[in-house]
Amino acid sequence: MQKITLLIHCEDQPNIIASVTNFMASNDGNIVYIDQHVDREQNIFFMRLECEFDSDIFSLEDFKTLFNSTLAEQFKLDWKIFSAERKPKMALFISKYDHCLYDILGRYNSGELHLEIPFILSNHLDLKPIADSFNIPFYHVPVTKTTKQEAEQEQLKLLESHNIDFIVLARYMQIVSETLIDKYPNKIINIHHSFLPAFVGAKPYHSAYKRGVKIIGATSHYITEELDAGPIIEQDVAHVSHTHSIKDLIAKGRDLEKIVLSNAIKLHADRKVMVFNNKTVIFS
Amino acid sequence: MQKITLLIHCEDQPNIIASVTNFMASNDGNIVYIDQHVDREQNIFFMRLECEFDSDIFSLEDFKTLFNSTLAEQFKLDWKIFSAERKPKMALFISKYDHCLYDILGRYNSGELHLEIPFILSNHLDLKPIADSFNIPFYHVPVTKTTKQEAEQEQLKLLESHNIDFIVLARYMQIVSETLIDKYPNKIINIHHSFLPAFVGAKPYHSAYKRGVKIIGATSHYITEELDAGPIIEQDVAHVSHTHSIKDLIAKGRDLEKIVLSNAIKLHADRKVMVFNNKTVIFS
Amino acid sequence: MQKITLLIHCEDQPNIIASVTNFMASNDGNIVYIDQHVDREQNIFFMRLECEFDSDIFSLEDFKTLFNSTLAEQFKLDWKIFSAERKPKMALFISKYDHCLYDILGRYNSGELHLEIPFILSNHLDLKPIADSFNIPFYHVPVTKTTKQEAEQEQLKLLESHNIDFIVLARYMQIVSETLIDKYPNKIINIHHSFLPAFVGAKPYHSAYKRGVKIIGATSHYITEELDAGPIIEQDVAHVSHTHSIKDLIAKGRDLEKIVLSNAIKLHADRKVMVFNNKTVIFS
Amino acid sequence: MQKITLLIHCEDQPNIIASVTNFMASNDGNIVYIDQHVDREQNIFFMRLECEFDSDIFSLEDFKTLFNSTLAEQFKLDWKIFSAERKPKMALFISKYDHCLYDILGRYNSGELHLEIPFILSNHLDLKPIADSFNIPFYHVPVTKTTKQEAEQEQLKLLESHNIDFIVLARYMQIVSETLIDKYPNKIINIHHSFLPAFVGAKPYHSAYKRGVKIIGATSHYITEELDAGPIIEQDVAHVSHTHSIKDLIAKGRDLEKIVLSNAIKLHADRKVMVFNNKTVIFS
Repeated sequence: MQKITLLIHCEDQPNIIASVTNFMASNDGNIVYIDQHVDREQNIFFMRLECEFDSDIFSLEDFKTLFNSTLAEQFKLDWKIFSAERKPKMALFISKYDHCLYDILGRYNSGELHLEIPFILSNHLDLKPIADSFNIPFYHVPVTKTTKQEAEQEQLKLLESHNIDFIVLARYMQIVSETLIDKYPNKIINIHHSFLPAFVGAKPYHSAYKRGVKIIGATSHYITEELDAGPIIEQDVAHVSHTHSIKDLIAKGRDLEKIVLSNAIKLHADRKVMVFNNKTVIFS
Repeated sequence: MQKITLLIHCEDQPNIIASVTNFMASNDGNIVYIDQHVDREQNIFFMRLECEFDSDIFSLEDFKTLFNSTLAEQFKLDWKIFSAERKPKMALFISKYDHCLYDILGRYNSGELHLEIPFILSNHLDLKPIADSFNIPFYHVPVTKTTKQEAEQEQLKLLESHNIDFIVLARYMQIVSETLIDKYPNKIINIHHSFLPAFVGAKPYHSAYKRGVKIIGATSHYITEELDAGPIIEQDVAHVSHTHSIKDLIAKGRDLEKIVLSNAIKLHADRKVMVFNNKTVIFS
Repeated sequence: MQKITLLIHCEDQPNIIASVTNFMASNDGNIVYIDQHVDREQNIFFMRLECEFDSDIFSLEDFKTLFNSTLAEQFKLDWKIFSAERKPKMALFISKYDHCLYDILGRYNSGELHLEIPFILSNHLDLKPIADSFNIPFYHVPVTKTTKQEAEQEQLKLLESHNIDFIVLARYMQIVSETLIDKYPNKIINIHHSFLPAFVGAKPYHSAYKRGVKIIGATSHYITEELDAGPIIEQDVAHVSHTHSIKDLIAKGRDLEKIVLSNAIKLHADRKVMVFNNKTVIFS
Repeated sequence: MQKITLLIHCEDQPNIIASVTNFMASNDGNIVYIDQHVDREQNIFFMRLECEFDSDIFSLEDFKTLFNSTLAEQFKLDWKIFSAERKPKMALFISKYDHCLYDILGRYNSGELHLEIPFILSNHLDLKPIADSFNIPFYHVPVTKTTKQEAEQEQLKLLESHNIDFIVLARYMQIVSETLIDKYPNKIINIHHSFLPAFVGAKPYHSAYKRGVKIIGATSHYITEELDAGPIIEQDVAHVSHTHSIKDLIAKGRDLEKIVLSNAIKLHADRKVMVFNNKTVIFS
């Protein structure tokens, strides 16, 4: 049995659900999951569908060609088809904080994540021992003002040579370049340590402390050119009080950051996230 | 345009999604919502679908007859079809607590609930003024050991004469009879003031206090013959500490009870709840 | 037995806790509650203390005079002493939304709030029937561009003649004047329908929808001259998804608003909130 | 400067707060933290106090002797005094699950925990590499039916020779013996993977799935002789739905377990937990 995941969006129009399900049936596919959403404000239709085919006769490439020339053309679909067999490849960019790293690698080790991690990249050497202890290749790519462009070239080369599908900035602490963003649109996941859009930019816990909020948060989102303004994948919060110092907020925030980032990784790797007009549709 | 909601469940089997969507299309229906779930443990397929038809030519009764003799028979479906036009009728059973009552009636008044409340029934007169202030008929049906059966007969007569679709026990504080449960299976919603299955039965806040829990909860569920053991619709919790007295737990719990019960009412009234084998599938 | 609540803050300094507790003991008081907080950033000490005295010999006024001329002078205290006997008087300002109003009055009726509501004031007549059904005097003070100042004068007169201690804006939807804010500093509680500082100003649910956040919130805070920037008393949030329309966010938000506002009212009425430098210390 | 933490409980009685604070002042101590609680049901007074003394002249032993012969005797206090300098020593008992272990060691490494971990003990060898990578001594003490008593003796010897203050069962999966419980009363912290008292005993996620709950939880508590019935330190929950399989519940639960257990460890190590009559008072 071969399983595919289909993601589509298009202008909302009649008969689209029936047409797609019919197409699968007439190609001997058995739909095992279907979910859909209509954005009434923008009149956009979204659908996620999982379908099983007999491995002996099914060809993913032929199927894609057929789908493209028929349904995709008829309904002017924006579409993606993934084979369940192929695990997405994720590059992990880190700096000096280890809490997200431990959380991700712990889950990776236990088989909770359906993905591969071909390498970990950092601008510092501090966390190399952790990468080593999990037996994952570690690349040290320092970033300074003068070497920024070289570093970027090295990053791109690594990403390409490892066929990376998406990048996770696990508290990477560096602004990634437009070139990288353009090459990996809605494929670079960041964790920001505030409930966006509150406290954009640097030192959000300090700002939260100063404002005297009773709730702190963390937000995972896709990186876009505007700082901390990309499509939000997942957010969570924790209650705090006047008794919490900035250091306490940072400690409590770490727990949010690691869970929120790992959840976003899982959603993305399982092809459950669609992006349209800087917002996400999440079929969970 | 006439909109229907279809709820089905059956043994999981190939091609069911395509067959149902195809049926709708071939009857000139346009599917505007579809969601499905497969219980892999029990091998049961569940689906909720909303479909629009041209009011000029669509007949709900003819459609039901056709559906029943074709798809329903072919796949051995357990099915229900509701017209979106017809708001369900809800009877509200109360006793002396007013917090759930105010919450429900406030929402009802503001148009948040898609249902009708033909009457409120209570075994006490205390809350009649509230019913009056919202202009909803109030029936006083006292329940004592000796009059229990008469009271039940009066309840049944009221429910039938008002064509009641479902009953909400908004802290009614009385055990309802088997006769009532049999006549309204999975149609009597109760709010229990604990996170079930913890603290079944009377005085759960007292038990929670005694056990020293750090979290209290509330659970809305359908009434079945076994006490507090029916299918759970919605639950929520709140954090508490050693500083909370039993009175504090009761006060904090009231906020949970009213929100959880109102959410359950909305889900049921919008036909988003399916029950199978004492568990719910909730398409939200 | 007469119970007082003492709130103090001052520059942090040695021996202050022992001195205050000693003062109470040497005046035949028995401390039944004590909590304190030190803001290490600003080096400010905060304390809340409840103390019981023998009613036969205790005079609140004498006690205040003595406290003022001794401890308060010695430690340069900013202090307030309340008698537990005197319930604070709260004026309720409303407009056309009824969810917070019902929630507050339901709690008031059931004895959950330790305060008095001498009157409800609104710029519209829509909710007068609710005030009537709870037997609370209702004043209609319309506010238009031309009558704004007169309206304010009328408000002030009503507040003074009823000895109002604090004001609650239960979705009042009008910007209150500087005069009012100056007369009731940190005594006007507002409910803002977002998790501040995100989405300051009008239509926060529309902004939240547009940004695609996965969490919405509500914030109760004291009104200051800067819009939505006053000291935060309480916040809460709810998870949302792409399936929620703006209308859904508004409905879900109503549940947050009413609970968060009522909690803030309780904290303020129980003298558990201290304000310093635009932040709150909450002894709960 | 030397800082001590004092924990006391006793029958509630007048003047106790003033007497204790006075005692500290008259011994040249400066109170920097005080919190108290009265359990009105049981008439028990609890207090936690932090006090600073001049290191040059302060002797902890002399202070304890004086405190014991005066205040402790006068008020019949149950008391403990800890020096802030001495970090508590924690033994970590594990089995085959690594998520709690990674979480604890990650925090330990980053300096978030104020404690020492002299050793990790397990009945299996699987997780030894993790202990090694964090450079913490690992003892393999297998437990079988026939070797149970020997194993227990070995455990006790290790605990004593390392001067262990408290034990954490990080998903240890073995029932610990009465002997161990007696030697470490309210000093063995367990993590149970349900919101107790729901789903006591084995396989709580399976039971939760079967009951169809909409919320799962985790509970950290002190081990007592009755299974899963000891004093609760911390609990947290997560919302789930019909879409979650047992495997999903287990994965989601792991996130709860690790955060809840680590929080309990922090509270205990910071001497913020008091136990009385199978319930906890937590001064946070």
